[in-house]
Amino acid sequence: MSRGLFVVFEGIDGCGKSTQARRVARDRDARFVFEPGDTPVGIDLRRWILDAATPMTPATEALLLLADRAHHVHSVIEPALASGRSVVADRFYASTLAYQGYGRGVDLDELRAATDLAIGDCRPDLTVLIDLAPNLALEREARDESDRFEIADARFHDRVRQGYLELAGEDVDGWFVVDGAPSVREVAAVIDQRLAELPW
Amino acid sequence: MSRGLFVVFEGIDGCGKSTQARRVARDRDARFVFEPGDTPVGIDLRRWILDAATPMTPATEALLLLADRAHHVHSVIEPALASGRSVVADRFYASTLAYQGYGRGVDLDELRAATDLAIGDCRPDLTVLIDLAPNLALEREARDESDRFEIADARFHDRVRQGYLELAGEDVDGWFVVDGAPSVREVAAVIDQRLAELPW
Repeated sequence: MSRGLFVVFEGIDGCGKSTQARRVARDRDARFVFEPGDTPVGIDLRRWILDAATPMTPATEALLLLADRAHHVHSVIEPALASGRSVVADRFYASTLAYQGYGRGVDLDELRAATDLAIGDCRPDLTVLIDLAPNLALEREARDESDRFEIADARFHDRVRQGYLELAGEDVDGWFVVDGAPSVREVAAVIDQRLAELPW
Repeated sequence: MSRGLFVVFEGIDGCGKSTQARRVARDRDARFVFEPGDTPVGIDLRRWILDAATPMTPATEALLLLADRAHHVHSVIEPALASGRSVVADRFYASTLAYQGYGRGVDLDELRAATDLAIGDCRPDLTVLIDLAPNLALEREARDESDRFEIADARFHDRVRQGYLELAGEDVDGWFVVDGAPSVREVAAVIDQRLAELPW
């Protein structure tokens, strides 16, 4: 049995990546996964990380996210891929580089090495970056809870966006950048055209 | 006010380091700390890591320990040192390199980079390695619980011991190796002679 495909959706909060990732997983009968918090350990980690009452440095936050990712890869993603099932992820390693690295200033080289520690050989076949200006993303985002990610300011989200674009420019593992400004349907059509090139 | 001294005790389980670390902290009126699990987040991490029922890769284990360490440095160790109080630690970054790196085979370069991410500039002034052969350590160790560290085999502990000796040989931050085979009193005398050279 051949290994499944691993497709990741990335972008700032409110860019529409969760909607597109869920849709693609359904259309392709792939396993949908998300981070942080898709495993029992991950749920506890997510609680700590999102609880703004617990003071935590960006480096601690990054290490917890990476621990969650390592556990997620080992217990969920790798077994699915090895069984021949494709996996579609809402966020993966690039989120940590973009948010904690570019966004919060954690050393990128140290972060990349720690990322390698976390994911090993489990690299995406394609990462789809849905690019959107932070002010447009904020308008879309339903902002009914206040957590650590949401209280961050517009300049932070702009650094994250620029970080994503730099990562896409480096194109490690294969990236595809799509403009997130058009309607969900139009964005879906552009994504599907690119995904049709993959050996599903 | 001058910064406090940061002294770390390292070695395999049963080498006597906890006894010596607590004694030195008491004698020097220093803050005694231990890892993993000296903070609220650390207590949860310790529970996961020591719970042999949760399958976890060595890399995940390392990242959780480093997250615990990062939080510990930020919330406990650095504030104490900055206030002028000395800190004596039962285990610090070398434990992760020795146990997860040398012991369990996690990539050492990635582990060192992740360690730098966790501790930043918070380096020990001196690390005291209490060296002891694993068979002697096992005889001493009260083995009333079975956790992930204790069920590991003798060859594992030997790799950890050799890893510690290599780290001491590199002598980053300053190391002092003491033979743990003599009595607690004799080991204490050798340690105190070395500690007397520090600017307490």
